[in-house]
Amino acid sequence: MTDWSAQDHAWMARAIRLAREGLFSTDPNPRVGCVLVQGDERVGEGYHVRAGEGHAEVNALRMAGERARGCTAYVTLEPCSHQGRTPPCADALVRAGVTRVVAAMVDPNPQVAGRGLERLRSAGIRADSGLLEAEARALNPGFIRRMESGRPWVRLKLAMSLDGRTAMASGESQWVTGSAARADVQRLRARSSAILTGVDSILLDDSSLTVRGAEAGFSTAEQAAVGARQPLRLVLDSQLRTPPGARILQQPGRTLIVTCLNDSAAQAPLIEGGAQLLCLPGIDGRVNLAALLDWLGREQCNELLVETGATLAGALVAAQLVDEIVVYMAPKLLGSAARPLLELPFEQMAQQIPLQVEDMRQLGADIRFTLRPQYSQQASLQQQPTQEPL
Amino acid sequence: MTDWSAQDHAWMARAIRLAREGLFSTDPNPRVGCVLVQGDERVGEGYHVRAGEGHAEVNALRMAGERARGCTAYVTLEPCSHQGRTPPCADALVRAGVTRVVAAMVDPNPQVAGRGLERLRSAGIRADSGLLEAEARALNPGFIRRMESGRPWVRLKLAMSLDGRTAMASGESQWVTGSAARADVQRLRARSSAILTGVDSILLDDSSLTVRGAEAGFSTAEQAAVGARQPLRLVLDSQLRTPPGARILQQPGRTLIVTCLNDSAAQAPLIEGGAQLLCLPGIDGRVNLAALLDWLGREQCNELLVETGATLAGALVAAQLVDEIVVYMAPKLLGSAARPLLELPFEQMAQQIPLQVEDMRQLGADIRFTLRPQYSQQASLQQQPTQEPL
Repeated sequence: MTDWSAQDHAWMARAIRLAREGLFSTDPNPRVGCVLVQGDERVGEGYHVRAGEGHAEVNALRMAGERARGCTAYVTLEPCSHQGRTPPCADALVRAGVTRVVAAMVDPNPQVAGRGLERLRSAGIRADSGLLEAEARALNPGFIRRMESGRPWVRLKLAMSLDGRTAMASGESQWVTGSAARADVQRLRARSSAILTGVDSILLDDSSLTVRGAEAGFSTAEQAAVGARQPLRLVLDSQLRTPPGARILQQPGRTLIVTCLNDSAAQAPLIEGGAQLLCLPGIDGRVNLAALLDWLGREQCNELLVETGATLAGALVAAQLVDEIVVYMAPKLLGSAARPLLELPFEQMAQQIPLQVEDMRQLGADIRFTLRPQYSQQASLQQQPTQEPL
Repeated sequence: MTDWSAQDHAWMARAIRLAREGLFSTDPNPRVGCVLVQGDERVGEGYHVRAGEGHAEVNALRMAGERARGCTAYVTLEPCSHQGRTPPCADALVRAGVTRVVAAMVDPNPQVAGRGLERLRSAGIRADSGLLEAEARALNPGFIRRMESGRPWVRLKLAMSLDGRTAMASGESQWVTGSAARADVQRLRARSSAILTGVDSILLDDSSLTVRGAEAGFSTAEQAAVGARQPLRLVLDSQLRTPPGARILQQPGRTLIVTCLNDSAAQAPLIEGGAQLLCLPGIDGRVNLAALLDWLGREQCNELLVETGATLAGALVAAQLVDEIVVYMAPKLLGSAARPLLELPFEQMAQQIPLQVEDMRQLGADIRFTLRPQYSQQASLQQQPTQEPL
């Protein structure tokens, strides 16, 4: 256990704030920040902006120039030791003459964790990790999850009334929550690698699921960070009911129809309409959700945002595949005939799913909860695992 | 509009804190606090403790003695000008030689509002009102409501999961919320004049609805303030299904069975079991809820706490009779087969009931919302008004 000074904390906190600047742009890379300190003076700082461009350490070293010699580097993630699209950052720090490196966390990929620090130490640099680790991990839930498990971080977005209802039984639902909550959903989209919805949402709302920052009141800085990037859009459509003219197919970026119906006659009209299809194994005629997450992991998807109805959302929660639930609660009563938050037909109290409250805050008149389901070891309503090879 | 000084604000804030000491004990009187100030010095203060004992002003004057001469009196409610169980406070202030009186609010009884201040002015005292009025009104929602409308303030307590469910379909429901929330419910009971439940809650849970301060972890001061006082308990039981052996009938304090079944054969076993009956007009075999509130107002009931199931709670909200909803939300999912928060079979979005969020705070792992329904002028599911005389 290393004893960190107040100075160490303050500089790492600054590195974390810098990393956050990349929230909307680093995908599929992690958000990373770096501060170079000489004595009490900050001589360089930087963050990773975009895949293929400089890593945080390199940007900070460029700013510091010759002044990097003898510095301490505070970096939110262990410097890489491998040649990727850019050269290894550990080597760059050694070459620049940095004498101490503090990393908030080690590389989440168990196969390379610690190698960057070792490389630094073998060059005579004092290198430690673990300062503000929880805060640093919170920057990259998806990247970390993918490195550790090969699957994305699954974030389920829900909007409901105080009595837990999402729409009237008739389907009437527009504007349950206010404009601040809707702008916040745009931020969730903008930070995601991919967005998943169900075909019923397409049939009901003809939603486009694009990031529309200007419309949503993004600041100029947010707008610039988002740029033209659109997360991959996925429509879960086991039986291929998406209309070839659906709005989601005409948007900038890429839309995939995810199905388990391996029937070229059914697929043809969609392909002709310009859609791309992803055919995955099914379970009783429905796409195997775990297989979809595995596929997304292989496609370097860090954070998957799910925006859908009670059926698919309930199935994902029941299968224990949701990592985080973001609920926008409007202070109103929609009544007992209205639609439920999630289709989760529990019969016994013991099946309940406890939620850890990570955050709760007011957004306009609405309240946003960020929650982590605490699943029990025994799944209560889990989707049957498939035996089919992918 | 009077300009109040920072000093005025600070002294009135102190008077309000003093008034709050009477939260659990003044019923059916209002909670009132008073501070007497000579120059910059507080020479006396007091609050109303219990009906039949000294009013706040009298307690403060007793403490000040001769030093009251030339003082300013800060009092959270206009001093009374009429002879009640104790002599008029306005006269006491005049006799003591107080030269200025600041009241947070005038008497809420429109028939006497302003008379106390007039009496003071006619004796040459400078008397004003309106300082921290909103805070002062919040001390006595029930007393003010009763003075203004002849009915109590109706506070509906609910406990639910995040997805708006109160119990499993089977009725299984114990401990949806944690111990901090349950202790808080004891505080709601202790401040109430009466507690209303439905016969179904009695049949299902055999609840006793007593104040059990020690059990609920009240502080010694709270425990002392509550004393032996038990709010009046009311069981809404239109068709007289309460078992004569029900636990609620054996508790200290008074329990009333409220019915519209004027049938002495049906009433006899309950009366023999020691129950008291209140027979009110009915609407289609159910007690007229508005008539019940009128009766409670005449019985000097200030704050009515409703602790009941979704049916009666929904009927009260639908009839626009609930003034405040206190919701204890446990961070868990009970699922879509579980029982709804309120039986409110709305069909259209336009029937929704907006809620004003007065307060939101964490209690242990749970979250408490204090809400005010914002009813539309046109009732959507209102109970038909009765034509029968009481």
